[in-house]
Amino acid sequence: MIEEVAVALDVGGTGMKCALVGADGVVRHAERHPTDAGRGPAAVVETILSVAEGLAGKAYADGLTPTALGIVVPGVVDEARGVAVWSANVGFRDVPLRDLAAARLGLPTALGHDVRAGGLAEARLGAGRDTGHVLFVAIGTGIAAAHVVAGRAVTGAHGAAGELGHILVRPDGPVCGCGRPGCLEAVASASAVARRYAELTGTDTGTATTRRTGSASDDGSAAGPGRGRTMVTAAEVAARADAGEEVAAQVWRETVEALADGLATAQALFDVATIVLGGGLAQAGAGLFDPLRAALRDRLTFHREPRLVPAVLGDEAGCLGAALLALDQMETP
Amino acid sequence: MIEEVAVALDVGGTGMKCALVGADGVVRHAERHPTDAGRGPAAVVETILSVAEGLAGKAYADGLTPTALGIVVPGVVDEARGVAVWSANVGFRDVPLRDLAAARLGLPTALGHDVRAGGLAEARLGAGRDTGHVLFVAIGTGIAAAHVVAGRAVTGAHGAAGELGHILVRPDGPVCGCGRPGCLEAVASASAVARRYAELTGTDTGTATTRRTGSASDDGSAAGPGRGRTMVTAAEVAARADAGEEVAAQVWRETVEALADGLATAQALFDVATIVLGGGLAQAGAGLFDPLRAALRDRLTFHREPRLVPAVLGDEAGCLGAALLALDQMETP
Repeated sequence: MIEEVAVALDVGGTGMKCALVGADGVVRHAERHPTDAGRGPAAVVETILSVAEGLAGKAYADGLTPTALGIVVPGVVDEARGVAVWSANVGFRDVPLRDLAAARLGLPTALGHDVRAGGLAEARLGAGRDTGHVLFVAIGTGIAAAHVVAGRAVTGAHGAAGELGHILVRPDGPVCGCGRPGCLEAVASASAVARRYAELTGTDTGTATTRRTGSASDDGSAAGPGRGRTMVTAAEVAARADAGEEVAAQVWRETVEALADGLATAQALFDVATIVLGGGLAQAGAGLFDPLRAALRDRLTFHREPRLVPAVLGDEAGCLGAALLALDQMETP
Repeated sequence: MIEEVAVALDVGGTGMKCALVGADGVVRHAERHPTDAGRGPAAVVETILSVAEGLAGKAYADGLTPTALGIVVPGVVDEARGVAVWSANVGFRDVPLRDLAAARLGLPTALGHDVRAGGLAEARLGAGRDTGHVLFVAIGTGIAAAHVVAGRAVTGAHGAAGELGHILVRPDGPVCGCGRPGCLEAVASASAVARRYAELTGTDTGTATTRRTGSASDDGSAAGPGRGRTMVTAAEVAARADAGEEVAAQVWRETVEALADGLATAQALFDVATIVLGGGLAQAGAGLFDPLRAALRDRLTFHREPRLVPAVLGDEAGCLGAALLALDQMETP
């Protein structure tokens, strides 16, 4: 019997994570390619399609049958129409990627959102397994989330649901890349942590912006693009806080408080059983999870407290989620 | 042919709205009863059951066939288990109301949450009709919301989803009845408006609390229970603001800003097509909707702007939603 696999691509601003994935969720083959987003959207689309073709060919060569294609991208994705509506870091604007790919490969194709796909994978194959209501939160350069109910990620009316990075937590706080003051992302993302530490230690480079929206999972501990000087990363701030450095401890405390405010708001609205934290900042481990659990507990009054657990699929979550989207559509008549 | 109807009850802290509703959503008969919550939960349950029995008898007497029962209550409701988990204003704590009613009437019974049921009715029969993603927000003594996707209200893992009243909007704001500072309900509910106006005009009675959680739709313009002196209601504050009174205008402006912050957070997370505002405060009409639309638009950057419309079903929404829950379960095998 010939085994069927999904062709899965997770397209980020810098690289693409690609795989052939069986119906059991097991990766049969994986490869990575640069995105080179600077070449413009048309070239990126061409690369996506040829990489997908190559993967399908690889499947046949290995005696596997590619039956479906799943592609996930950052930004605003209209999954129902299969359109990459807007993505700053890949340069997409209203790209009908699903139909382009389906026409090129002749396979049923699903287009999804990278963080929602990552959340789907964590909810079904990872840290949220066996719980029906999961919130996956990716904390990296930005902050984004996916609400997964009964094994399906909630997309919203226009493909823009889950923008946890852009909820108000500090009305008097710094201006976010989206233009509004006090967004969670402007206060508690990895880049916000690095920037705040630089401010307080007098090493600020003065280019305080966060990205507008989109993927948050792939470059968690970086201090953000376009900086002239290397800033202390969020991971290093966490380490220094753990070692007792006063300024680092203050920045970390403020970060934890803001994250707890954001998660408490999400819990009031979503009432999930499990919150899965991924992205670079979550790699701080107990240094993040212990104080964050306590701060979240402080904020929950009548609400039930969700489990707060680290993601387990790492940077493969988006690609696995793309495979799940591809496989799911085969089940839907 | 004998017409089939659902028996529907919307149980609030002060009264019960009850009806016989056809499969077309049309009310065939309506009646109201006092809840008399002060008698304790056992007596309230007995009243609910006997009222439901009476309605079923009325149906038969009118040549109708009652095929299902729907009951909605405020607070935290576990719809999957059919349990009224917690409700301050009805006095329920872990009452297995669904099974009690099913046993008494011999009808398939659904138990739901009043605001979620109201949202369901507005989404399917009212102001959100023909839009797939709806957020219903009831602004009265408290603030609560229901997120309806594809004609189903999202309940959450423990029946506590949609607590929009308890998201953080003003970290330095007044303490909410739930115990946390700066909740939306503590700043922008009808009772908060009345209280803030009393504070600024020196007529405060000093008992500044809001309810802990629960139904927000039935006593919108009241100043809250347990007050020794009559406060100026939110509706009157709105009227005075409209007439140009300075303090009233300030309170109203602050209320609109806080509501816009709350709705922007909800839109970032839910990405709905339509937001339906109900409850007493929404009766301020253009005096609320015009500035609120503008303030919400200011806050939306990359998000799509939802339609912001007033509820149309009034205080019958919860009862109609109870009927929809009853009828829906007949379709699910």
